[in-house]
Amino acid sequence: MRSRLSINRLVVIGVGLIGGSFAAALKRARAVRHVVGVGRTRRNLDAALRLGIIDEAQRDPARAIRDADFVLVATPVGQTPAVLAGIGPHLPRYAVVTDAGSTKRDVIACARRFLGDHFPRFVPAHPVAGTEKSGVTAALAGLFRNRFVILTPQRETAPGAVALVRRAWETCGARVVRLEAQEHDAIFAAVSHLPHVVAFALVNALARRPGAQRLFGFSAGGLRDTVRIAGSSPEMWADICLANRDVLLPVLEDYEDELEQVRSAIESGDAAALRRMFEQARSAREKWLVKKRD
Amino acid sequence: MRSRLSINRLVVIGVGLIGGSFAAALKRARAVRHVVGVGRTRRNLDAALRLGIIDEAQRDPARAIRDADFVLVATPVGQTPAVLAGIGPHLPRYAVVTDAGSTKRDVIACARRFLGDHFPRFVPAHPVAGTEKSGVTAALAGLFRNRFVILTPQRETAPGAVALVRRAWETCGARVVRLEAQEHDAIFAAVSHLPHVVAFALVNALARRPGAQRLFGFSAGGLRDTVRIAGSSPEMWADICLANRDVLLPVLEDYEDELEQVRSAIESGDAAALRRMFEQARSAREKWLVKKRD
Repeated sequence: MRSRLSINRLVVIGVGLIGGSFAAALKRARAVRHVVGVGRTRRNLDAALRLGIIDEAQRDPARAIRDADFVLVATPVGQTPAVLAGIGPHLPRYAVVTDAGSTKRDVIACARRFLGDHFPRFVPAHPVAGTEKSGVTAALAGLFRNRFVILTPQRETAPGAVALVRRAWETCGARVVRLEAQEHDAIFAAVSHLPHVVAFALVNALARRPGAQRLFGFSAGGLRDTVRIAGSSPEMWADICLANRDVLLPVLEDYEDELEQVRSAIESGDAAALRRMFEQARSAREKWLVKKRD
Repeated sequence: MRSRLSINRLVVIGVGLIGGSFAAALKRARAVRHVVGVGRTRRNLDAALRLGIIDEAQRDPARAIRDADFVLVATPVGQTPAVLAGIGPHLPRYAVVTDAGSTKRDVIACARRFLGDHFPRFVPAHPVAGTEKSGVTAALAGLFRNRFVILTPQRETAPGAVALVRRAWETCGARVVRLEAQEHDAIFAAVSHLPHVVAFALVNALARRPGAQRLFGFSAGGLRDTVRIAGSSPEMWADICLANRDVLLPVLEDYEDELEQVRSAIESGDAAALRRMFEQARSAREKWLVKKRD
């Protein structure tokens, strides 16, 4: 039997939806003794203290990580370089560092550059969870239950560090899977980054129409669900789109090609082609739902 | 006080999700004595009989409407011409006819053509409700509760016919609103038809990628919600897109322009522009949700 996970000093840099939920889940499991939250705004850190998600608030990451044994970087991807550069020289020797970024190749390159000798104790990770809400007040101890967490360790990554990060996420209830970083980024460009772009663009197209508020007033559940993720953090998603642009742009182009095919079938009044395309989509979605249920 | 709605013989042509739910709601309210269901497939009609949603099944619309006092045409929009042409010469003089089509100008033109002298007793209607499921087995007596039903009566439409159709929908729990047919079609091109096109195209773009099933396996709630309506009836949606193409094509083009703007910001690495676009979308969605809640 494995001994119980026990983290002495957990430092969460970026106490938002993900960082806050991670700390809350480990606290609920009594797997952590002391949680230090690092953030940019006093207000969010105060909320995290009030909610009991962190025990101590710090503004300076380099100071916060002294004596840390586990550091989670859960800021928007765009801030990762500055954060890693700031903590790199000050990390205690045995501290394990991990992240929660939605893209992995950029974070790995950055960690390689800024963590130096500490790079083997950095475990790149992506918890596939979230809601369209942001900030610590949206945090939920059960957010990761039955959700995937993808780890993309490198050749140099210490097996002990991978094992610890895996156990921490499993303690949160997650299903931990390993992937190559390149494969990870290609998969999530398709199933996550593209849908966000689609949702943001759809809302903007409607919002620019004359009488947009009246328009929205007549909408029903279909539109509401289709654009739910357009409520997500603009900063975070701008960072993700740019960090992953080499694989995102080709899937975006494929999607634009699909739209063009639909448009040309509508223009030419080709009912058979339209039905065929819609039928393909319906059955692909069905197959996918059945598989997800297994 | 108004007397209670009492329909003697309700004929539902197309006993699917909408037609079935309408009959079920009126039965539950004891507002109808006898329901005749007309459909293309024996299997669906048998299910409707078994569920107690209809009392009698017919294959021939012209025969079914003898002695009807209320006729709901709830087939996919593409079949409306054939249905109206088939029943037009056989309608009892006082029967009120209505429909449930998602587009209104085409149905009105068709009714004008095929119903002849009976046109004043035709009330064009669009219940703004549904799920991604189709068929009578998906029908729910509560489907229309608090949902909009849009009526688009014409100059010639008899006020008594409008009043009856309004009361029938109100009896189903719906909020009945009148709009001009042109305005109706433009609104729903934007808030309903475009989102369906977006969802169908998104699923197809993903399904064509290598290892699509593995891809879908890693998806989370974001994609699931974004493409929920891609489970909708391909036949129905192909009909709608074609019936409403003159107003749908311009909104589809606007959407494609939005996507192009996002793509060009990603290509050029313009983080500020991306954030601005995503922020616009987020706040438009927020405003809309707040308004819907009022």
